[in-house]
Amino acid sequence: MKYNKIGIFDSGMGGLTVLKEMLKRINGLDMVYFGDTARLPYGTKSPDVIKQYTLECSRFLVEQGIDMLVLACNTASAHAISMVRNELNIPVMGVIEAGVKAAVSTGASRIGVIGTTATIKSNTYANAIRAIRPEVDVVSKACPLFVPLVEEGMFDDEVTELVAKRYLEGLISYGIDTLLLGCTHYPLLRGVIGKVMGNGISIVDSAATTAAAVARMVHGEYECKESPDVVYYFTDLTQSYLKLGELVLGRHMDNVIKVDLDGR
Amino acid sequence: MKYNKIGIFDSGMGGLTVLKEMLKRINGLDMVYFGDTARLPYGTKSPDVIKQYTLECSRFLVEQGIDMLVLACNTASAHAISMVRNELNIPVMGVIEAGVKAAVSTGASRIGVIGTTATIKSNTYANAIRAIRPEVDVVSKACPLFVPLVEEGMFDDEVTELVAKRYLEGLISYGIDTLLLGCTHYPLLRGVIGKVMGNGISIVDSAATTAAAVARMVHGEYECKESPDVVYYFTDLTQSYLKLGELVLGRHMDNVIKVDLDGR
Repeated sequence: MKYNKIGIFDSGMGGLTVLKEMLKRINGLDMVYFGDTARLPYGTKSPDVIKQYTLECSRFLVEQGIDMLVLACNTASAHAISMVRNELNIPVMGVIEAGVKAAVSTGASRIGVIGTTATIKSNTYANAIRAIRPEVDVVSKACPLFVPLVEEGMFDDEVTELVAKRYLEGLISYGIDTLLLGCTHYPLLRGVIGKVMGNGISIVDSAATTAAAVARMVHGEYECKESPDVVYYFTDLTQSYLKLGELVLGRHMDNVIKVDLDGR
Repeated sequence: MKYNKIGIFDSGMGGLTVLKEMLKRINGLDMVYFGDTARLPYGTKSPDVIKQYTLECSRFLVEQGIDMLVLACNTASAHAISMVRNELNIPVMGVIEAGVKAAVSTGASRIGVIGTTATIKSNTYANAIRAIRPEVDVVSKACPLFVPLVEEGMFDDEVTELVAKRYLEGLISYGIDTLLLGCTHYPLLRGVIGKVMGNGISIVDSAATTAAAVARMVHGEYECKESPDVVYYFTDLTQSYLKLGELVLGRHMDNVIKVDLDGR
């Protein structure tokens, strides 16, 4: 069998939206989640730092025996996926490709992409969409306050709605027909984002589309375990992080381990 | 002469509010600023991680030849100052003591303290105030979104005002007479905070009070240079960080150097 253990990496808790969708679709396969909570967020940092951190964390996951890696962080996927693929000898799946495929497959003609400052600056989404369907009109908008708002658990809040209106008004007046959530934190704001965008605009969530792509990839290629392990590694642990993590995941995290990447 | 070069440390750009006040009060002394932008923010992280990062950065500053260190970060001051004092052989000044002294000297009887989650959880302010004036009533409130709002440059904004109302309404109804800004980012929100708090409440800014304390400490103890150096080290550099830094500082940053703490 090809797969025994999948690694899922994010700068923090956002990637748990991907893991949650994976756990719905993939039964009986061990999974290891890694959140770099001691250095989050990545979305405001430079490409060099994002690459360095992503590679360090990916190598840690390889040491845990994974045979596939999901970069469940759009910022890391946008900046570091080629480098990580070159450095590791296992398949590496990002969150961008699946989201882009789902967005263009709806027959969208004008796509809005939202993400962190680093993701939007990279132009990765716009380039990936144009590579498949050059005639599609793409407009991008960085939404830097969405991650801190999610981290505060303010999923459905007057403040979040006001911020969402500010970020999304340009996309609405530009007349987009599809909105691509280019950050794994954003599915948690789907309610507020949907309310602000109004009816008639498709919202594509890269967490769900990536999980579906991973499920297709491993289907029939692993031995189904009766009690698969899900282990969670974090570089920092606080009660707030854990509370948020369980809220995002919608289940208790049993095997939580703190790891010091510097001290190894 | 006792002092030749002062080091100023913060997790990011907030400590520049302290440096700005120091540059107003201290002429002709070399200064070195260090912002750990690759790992910011500290305020949501655990005490262990805050201590480790603060010590690493402080040691880097000592290697640059400083003979006094200002921990211009309330989160670092709250959690790491004793450890840093034990480890270094130079005077270390935090931002908490000066702010507390200024707050109690106004004859305050009910003080509100605002800061990051880590600072407020440490109870350092409440303990420091009660150590000097046990009869003072202290109420604390963590304001985790203030730092991201400052980092987005949203100093005077409808969103910031709404967030400030949310955070401060409890302090207002509790009837505080003094508000202590327990984070070096917060002086940048002084306008919005003042508007929400209304008249009759003293606002004490730990950046200004710390700078004044440092100025008193070095007065007459250094040789005044005609062209003192101000050097800025950051662990990560982006255009947004630099733009914010110069906005906070109100002047151009000439000598900016990126440093990789891991790679040394």
